[in-house]
Amino acid sequence: MLVANATAVGQAQIRDMMAEWVTAACAKDVNRLISLHAPDVVLFDVGNPLQYDGLDAATRRMKEWFSFFQGPVDYEIRDLTIAADEDVGFCHGLHHVNGTRTDGTTLDMWWRATVCFRKLDRKWMVTHAHSSVPFDVNSGRASLDLKP
Amino acid sequence: MLVANATAVGQAQIRDMMAEWVTAACAKDVNRLISLHAPDVVLFDVGNPLQYDGLDAATRRMKEWFSFFQGPVDYEIRDLTIAADEDVGFCHGLHHVNGTRTDGTTLDMWWRATVCFRKLDRKWMVTHAHSSVPFDVNSGRASLDLKP
Repeated sequence: MLVANATAVGQAQIRDMMAEWVTAACAKDVNRLISLHAPDVVLFDVGNPLQYDGLDAATRRMKEWFSFFQGPVDYEIRDLTIAADEDVGFCHGLHHVNGTRTDGTTLDMWWRATVCFRKLDRKWMVTHAHSSVPFDVNSGRASLDLKP
Repeated sequence: MLVANATAVGQAQIRDMMAEWVTAACAKDVNRLISLHAPDVVLFDVGNPLQYDGLDAATRRMKEWFSFFQGPVDYEIRDLTIAADEDVGFCHGLHHVNGTRTDGTTLDMWWRATVCFRKLDRKWMVTHAHSSVPFDVNSGRASLDLKP
């Protein structure tokens, strides 16, 4: 397959950013994770509300999420698909966390994540991330135990 | 703001595609809606399962969804944000449907949607779409009645 240079370079750079995302998440390092995000990032997250606007709201949300766990967590991404051009890119895949909650129980959960990037001042930044689980239309319950 | 030509053109083209998406959805026209999608589209949808792979699966899912309603539906998108470069683009916003189910009850629902595009043979195509509602972490129930 013939790929334009911008495409190949952008894909590799976004792949590196998602590797950094995983490393930061495993370490529950909020600052490292948030440094990937643009100031005006819009998050659609797994839990309520409908959306989080801006870096402050995103940071508070990530801190809250990491506080659910004691110690480091296992975090992985499967089926990562990446598209990129010179200044715009996106990726989607299945994200998985396995960790111990502060109450000692285990959280072992998969969800879908779409992460969208723009190059700002020559640097890729996450301007939008959408994480979710689907729900069971019969029970109305979120499907927290699906596995790929 | 200085915008590159590819960016402005791509944004306008994607805006047109989302207008076409709305028109097709209001008419429950599966063929018209599916014609916007690439053969290898990956859908993360509001309901189970985790994902739908490819146009056949996406078509079956859309047909099933439209079959829930009697007559046409109202469909709108709010807070649509678009980024585009020469060959890659994405948009995100809040989607809303208001329609009458086949049992006569009303469905009035908002959800988050991220739609990702690649230009294939000089034509923008949806290669990925992620639609979801968040869930209430206390009850474990999908939040089907949130409003922006």
